[in-house]
Amino acid sequence: MKRNRVNRVLENMEKMGLDQLIVGEPASVYYLTGRWIEPGERMLALLISKGGACALFVNRLFAQAPDEDMRLVEFDDTDDAAAFLAEAVAPGRLGVDKAWPSAFLIRLMKKRPGLEILEGSQAVDQARMLKDEEELAALRRSSRLNDQALERTIQAIQPGMSERQIARMYEDNAIALGAMGNSFPGLICFGENCAEPHHETGDRRLKDGDSVILDVGLNLNHAMSDMTRTVFLGRATDEQRRVYDLVLRANEAGRRAARPGIPLSDIDRAARSVIEQAGYGARFIHRTGHGIGLSVHEPPDVSSANGLICQPGMVFSIEPGVYLPGAFGVRVEDLVAVTQDGAETLNALDRELRII
Amino acid sequence: MKRNRVNRVLENMEKMGLDQLIVGEPASVYYLTGRWIEPGERMLALLISKGGACALFVNRLFAQAPDEDMRLVEFDDTDDAAAFLAEAVAPGRLGVDKAWPSAFLIRLMKKRPGLEILEGSQAVDQARMLKDEEELAALRRSSRLNDQALERTIQAIQPGMSERQIARMYEDNAIALGAMGNSFPGLICFGENCAEPHHETGDRRLKDGDSVILDVGLNLNHAMSDMTRTVFLGRATDEQRRVYDLVLRANEAGRRAARPGIPLSDIDRAARSVIEQAGYGARFIHRTGHGIGLSVHEPPDVSSANGLICQPGMVFSIEPGVYLPGAFGVRVEDLVAVTQDGAETLNALDRELRII
Repeated sequence: MKRNRVNRVLENMEKMGLDQLIVGEPASVYYLTGRWIEPGERMLALLISKGGACALFVNRLFAQAPDEDMRLVEFDDTDDAAAFLAEAVAPGRLGVDKAWPSAFLIRLMKKRPGLEILEGSQAVDQARMLKDEEELAALRRSSRLNDQALERTIQAIQPGMSERQIARMYEDNAIALGAMGNSFPGLICFGENCAEPHHETGDRRLKDGDSVILDVGLNLNHAMSDMTRTVFLGRATDEQRRVYDLVLRANEAGRRAARPGIPLSDIDRAARSVIEQAGYGARFIHRTGHGIGLSVHEPPDVSSANGLICQPGMVFSIEPGVYLPGAFGVRVEDLVAVTQDGAETLNALDRELRII
Repeated sequence: MKRNRVNRVLENMEKMGLDQLIVGEPASVYYLTGRWIEPGERMLALLISKGGACALFVNRLFAQAPDEDMRLVEFDDTDDAAAFLAEAVAPGRLGVDKAWPSAFLIRLMKKRPGLEILEGSQAVDQARMLKDEEELAALRRSSRLNDQALERTIQAIQPGMSERQIARMYEDNAIALGAMGNSFPGLICFGENCAEPHHETGDRRLKDGDSVILDVGLNLNHAMSDMTRTVFLGRATDEQRRVYDLVLRANEAGRRAARPGIPLSDIDRAARSVIEQAGYGARFIHRTGHGIGLSVHEPPDVSSANGLICQPGMVFSIEPGVYLPGAFGVRVEDLVAVTQDGAETLNALDRELRII
């Protein structure tokens, strides 16, 4: 167990009035136990009780070494795993991990109908949200490696390549540089596909005049990175240049705004207002950013709805974009780590308009 | 909407006494709507009402075309998505997808405290479990491509390679042959690592005398494959040969046992008893198989606990294994599709003991 992390979770549980907490997300279990377990459809639960006792419920298939500081409850595929958990849960207010599959919660509620069930992830998420020096160093290394992997990829782009080929090339570069793999399947879009922020990387071939969005990140020993660059093949029209400049200024405004003491919504505002003032507000159709760490998307959101106060140790993306249906799109994304008096940008890859 | 599939789900809902059903798993949403949406941490819900009405709740980021046969309820990152769903849910018995993240269920229960919540996945899972001719053809193609991708990979294995390198090589082969990618991260294990069925593919280097477990599958237009072969580098000891022969016979017994009308547990028994009779029962530490289709793991389980009756159209793995801690392990896995009077094996890659 990582006792100092568990203690922070216990403090958060006390503030939330939770008697017990079920942690199920693999990244959160790893954060608290140092054990990476991918349970697939099987049940995984770390039960934390307000007195500090911890118990890990895990299928015997994922053989776990004992730990003096944690009870290990193992079961087989033929066992009713939720029954083991139901026996161990105390009466009272039970916090449940947001990502825990509903099936296990429904089974638990049936066996223990009197429990008060609440969303409990915040207790862990708030601890994970504030990174210590060691975690920051790991995220810095991951982003710097991402810079290198993307630069190698951009240099190798050729007309006629497919989106999928470039995504694969990026992943090859990331692994060759020492990453465990992607932190998410790379989003590579050409031309009109760039206008869909969640376009599925496909077989579209690259041609002259295309915008190219490369939204990629890697997993370096469970420290995630995530960055987007938009480049143009052969040439860029005046409109493409104007939109690019706008998005870059929004990215810079967002990164400059990030500092302790202000609501995260102010950072969204700083980036968004640049785009709004140029008349493209309706074409920036997503939040400005998301937290990142052991997961590629984790709290805090950088959105107009998040009034949470920015604090040192938070790490999140600043990724404004402008999407013009049928034509093209531009997004420029960097990760920032909030410091005592501002924010450090974790990516160093050049952001000037680039024609390849 | 795939109306004939929705109708099968509606029949199942009636048998289960469900008034409404929330479908959340991307593969199930795809099965019923033909739309592949990966929502990440965002809410995705297809609400099916017993009268047949369908409504898809989806973040506007995943822009969806309208469908006359389905209501589209779109929301933004700043909306409380569960509130939209809470408004649409009718009083009564609500089935919930097993994989739906607990956070949405807890929010929904808070807004609609009177609802009776039940596990609802079976309504869709039972429909998905019985594949039609088109689905069978797609799964057959996927497994035949997997045969080719694994054969190419085995032929390229060299002493000194790492587990990770071979996993990557397999994925390269799968993509080069036309797959969208892996159906799951390949499990490649050498020597003593083969004794852990869920060993994480790592940096162990291949050396003479090692057993090599290759458990790999690919995704061909959302039709998943999954197969395991165990080969030996340079030589195989008498014990390795004995265990290999045993596991192969268990695989054959399991595949031979598969036919309509018997409980799935009988298929598990057929494979397991071969291993038990040879005295290795305690070293076969997992179920015999799992269903596969749009997901790499889906119902039905082939385990001692599953009394469900085997039916034509079911597709599942037969994957007995023997795991000898500190020494080596062997697993031989094939997919079978249950026919009118037996079962068709979807993989054709040779199973004889192979020294490379």
